[in-house]
Amino acid sequence: MNKVAQNLSEAISIKYNNIVYELKSQGKDVTVLSLGEAYFDIPDFGFSLSSPDLYHYSHSRGILSLREKIAKYYKETYEVNVDPVSEVLVTAGSKIGVYYAMKALVNPEDEVLIIEPFWVSYSEQVKLVGGTPRFFPSNLKLDEIKNHITKKTKLLIINNPQNPTGKNFSKAELENLYTLAKDNNFYILSDEAYSDFLLNEKFVSFGAVDKKFERTIVVNSISKNFGMSGWRVGYMLSNKEIIYTCLKLNQHMMTCAPTPLLMFIDKHFEDIIKVTRPQIEEIIVKRHRIQDCMDKLGIRYLEGSSTFYFFIDISDSEMGSVEFCDILLSEYFVATVPGIGYGESCDSYIRLSFGTESDERIISGLERIKKLIEHKK
Amino acid sequence: MNKVAQNLSEAISIKYNNIVYELKSQGKDVTVLSLGEAYFDIPDFGFSLSSPDLYHYSHSRGILSLREKIAKYYKETYEVNVDPVSEVLVTAGSKIGVYYAMKALVNPEDEVLIIEPFWVSYSEQVKLVGGTPRFFPSNLKLDEIKNHITKKTKLLIINNPQNPTGKNFSKAELENLYTLAKDNNFYILSDEAYSDFLLNEKFVSFGAVDKKFERTIVVNSISKNFGMSGWRVGYMLSNKEIIYTCLKLNQHMMTCAPTPLLMFIDKHFEDIIKVTRPQIEEIIVKRHRIQDCMDKLGIRYLEGSSTFYFFIDISDSEMGSVEFCDILLSEYFVATVPGIGYGESCDSYIRLSFGTESDERIISGLERIKKLIEHKK
Repeated sequence: MNKVAQNLSEAISIKYNNIVYELKSQGKDVTVLSLGEAYFDIPDFGFSLSSPDLYHYSHSRGILSLREKIAKYYKETYEVNVDPVSEVLVTAGSKIGVYYAMKALVNPEDEVLIIEPFWVSYSEQVKLVGGTPRFFPSNLKLDEIKNHITKKTKLLIINNPQNPTGKNFSKAELENLYTLAKDNNFYILSDEAYSDFLLNEKFVSFGAVDKKFERTIVVNSISKNFGMSGWRVGYMLSNKEIIYTCLKLNQHMMTCAPTPLLMFIDKHFEDIIKVTRPQIEEIIVKRHRIQDCMDKLGIRYLEGSSTFYFFIDISDSEMGSVEFCDILLSEYFVATVPGIGYGESCDSYIRLSFGTESDERIISGLERIKKLIEHKK
Repeated sequence: MNKVAQNLSEAISIKYNNIVYELKSQGKDVTVLSLGEAYFDIPDFGFSLSSPDLYHYSHSRGILSLREKIAKYYKETYEVNVDPVSEVLVTAGSKIGVYYAMKALVNPEDEVLIIEPFWVSYSEQVKLVGGTPRFFPSNLKLDEIKNHITKKTKLLIINNPQNPTGKNFSKAELENLYTLAKDNNFYILSDEAYSDFLLNEKFVSFGAVDKKFERTIVVNSISKNFGMSGWRVGYMLSNKEIIYTCLKLNQHMMTCAPTPLLMFIDKHFEDIIKVTRPQIEEIIVKRHRIQDCMDKLGIRYLEGSSTFYFFIDISDSEMGSVEFCDILLSEYFVATVPGIGYGESCDSYIRLSFGTESDERIISGLERIKKLIEHKK
């Protein structure tokens, strides 16, 4: 077998969620603080299958009117300009978009800089395209980041806002990274999947920094912002040359994103935003409540203001994060994700997602987490 | 940019179909004989979005009850045994399944044997995973195939029934290939996307030859057999080790196939087969009518009894296949796909698909093809 593929680790968040599906099918009551999604109430807008078009292939760049809506949204919300005809590619989820971006840019032996803690699939995808991942912590100063750049550096991946901490990068931080990219001739891949999860705070897209997308690819998704993670629809924004290369990858690997889902999202784009926007705001208010609860319990976590995640410090337990999560799930029936999946330096953390359970159940889960932190081996 | 990605050719069939979408949006009446799909009448079974589950991630192997239906279908229809728990992976289309199979097995510099004419994405995908594609024509004798095997041969790809000729491989042919694979220690990737398109003839799955899937991966799709090409749902069958490696690829590249589409297909699996089965039979009857018409017009084509394709010989035109198809589309408003996309030896052919237009329009299209063949430069 291919060595890289065979040695891949399972996506650690998905691995735990698969265990949860199995425990639940056995009738176990699991408090699920592991899912990478927030549950929204979305009214049934109706999904008619009466048009034959819904069954057939569609344009491999994505339905044009959906691309136009995406371009309009980025322009009106984040002051980013893209041409829907040539600078937008609709993909079957943003994950495959990240893969296309890497495949389009990274040659074997190229290095890819990843900001730690990082979303679990970045490093595995870099290995899959033959590159070498290099990591640095997100609190590093600009001068320190420079030490990680080599002649082989081809790409830097930033997840903004950041999963699993909730950090929202400032415009100054992004501009500094862009200057580094220009000075050292590398590209930026900005994964903006949680761009809407802010309250009384501004989100800065990398497309508002590198306005002509000279060395930037933005990836985003309807998974998080629209509460439709299971639909696997995302999109990429970049200059037309990079998008064209990604289009060819899409043609040979996917053909097109699923037609009926694109038609539905195209038809209800504004309706869905109208429904989900206030619910996103509620999630950020909920974030503050959960934060207060952790402060009272004396649970420590990394700083952040966005997303529905907290990256919780479990170092007092003196356990590795996998052992901690395994015990937490099998004995306390609380599912979280081990920090080790987010970088080797993150083994004294676990990721908690508060997007899918009630306050009451989350607080009960936090109490059990606190108990396990204090229950030393 | 990555050299392989940048030098990728556009999937030639998709490229022409994108031109068709654009011509149609300008109001042009194009006779579309280029699409890789057959249109079926499928009643509106109803697609309710009232369950919140429809919005969320699902098991990254695919919903279990759908995997069970797929396993049952392969057992009852093709006498193939697989365990739905560990030997079936549901994918977002069979195309990405073919990619996973290659990524799982092929190391850089490995060689992959492809039977010519071949489906356009095989060779590009081999290049994307760092392998070297090697081609041989499908009418080759066993002794001649042996000449193409080297120590680096890792995988052989067979498309059965074959797009674009419609060839249905016999059990003896498959057994011979399997013997070669065992003797020379390579794997078989059997793409069976058109497995149902047969009338009064038996389809032999490679899983009925290599019964334990020791060195075989079967890929199939609901695109063709269910008439739902735009849904991008497919599946892979193999031994549990290979499926586990592909599962990890799926977790890092896709998470899962789209939940709402899997739930719909799971719910209506038997209903859809009941509706599409007689329509597939009609397509094979239509194949005979189109064949008669070509015989009368004196149009030559390669032998085959399955699928909704013909591979038409245009050598008398003295044009290359791209030039032929470009003129045919721009001056005669008939869309077909240039043979060159199916192998370098196929430049004197074009692929015709009769799955989406009426007999009348196809016959008129054939008359125009005949005219262009005879209209020498």
